[in-house]
Amino acid sequence: MIGRLNHIAIAVPDLAAAAAKYRDLLGAQVGQQRALPEHGVTVVFINTGNTKVELLEPLGEGSPIAAFLAKNSAGGMHHVCFEVPDILAAAAKLVAGGARILGDGTPKAGAHGLPVLFLHPKDFDGVLVELEQRLSQPNAAVVRWTRL
Amino acid sequence: MIGRLNHIAIAVPDLAAAAAKYRDLLGAQVGQQRALPEHGVTVVFINTGNTKVELLEPLGEGSPIAAFLAKNSAGGMHHVCFEVPDILAAAAKLVAGGARILGDGTPKAGAHGLPVLFLHPKDFDGVLVELEQRLSQPNAAVVRWTRL
Repeated sequence: MIGRLNHIAIAVPDLAAAAAKYRDLLGAQVGQQRALPEHGVTVVFINTGNTKVELLEPLGEGSPIAAFLAKNSAGGMHHVCFEVPDILAAAAKLVAGGARILGDGTPKAGAHGLPVLFLHPKDFDGVLVELEQRLSQPNAAVVRWTRL
Repeated sequence: MIGRLNHIAIAVPDLAAAAAKYRDLLGAQVGQQRALPEHGVTVVFINTGNTKVELLEPLGEGSPIAAFLAKNSAGGMHHVCFEVPDILAAAAKLVAGGARILGDGTPKAGAHGLPVLFLHPKDFDGVLVELEQRLSQPNAAVVRWTRL
């Protein structure tokens, strides 16, 4: 079911400072800062060649990472995102196996505009797992998603 | 400097149960359990195609992940590992930039038998960063490492 690790996300208190450290100290390929007000975060993507690191800073009221940073004021690893070919099939299998999907259990459009789900960290050893539907070609799963 | 994300490591309280969840619930490619007594951990690698997830359980007294699991009893993301072509050059650049290397500051043989360093989490937004030297061909950096 799960395929590539799409990204790991790190919540940081100061995005510009964090991006500068990855660029200048670690010599990483650091992208431009992008505000995503509909997701309550400002992001910087780091391209590692095989995957991405997503640095996240809260944006606006009610940011989904505000509580995490209140607990972890220095920042920390926030979630890990795996790609799946069919998110509805993945969700059905997970729920049948007893795993909990956060929110109302249906996929939402994620930061890349693709359908995503988050799984309860208590079901995966304290790790917040995101699943993102990724397809190189439109197929039945995309049709099912767009009709939700 | 940093290249591919080699792996992310997740510390878990029950390795067999965690591996079963990744295999049966997430349908991941889960490898065999391997005891690494010299590193104080038992590991299971998950192959995501582009990178790896390393599930870690403490092994023996003084495991390097024991303190983390004492604080995070359910488990959690423990560290992230990036590949570098020359670990001594990387260390010199990091120290010159004010970053702290854990331990005595010199590379050690990691779980893959390759030279690794760990950077202080306070310098990288609460994230424990491992650097691992990876080379497709022997070169000057390997010679320098083997002479340490």
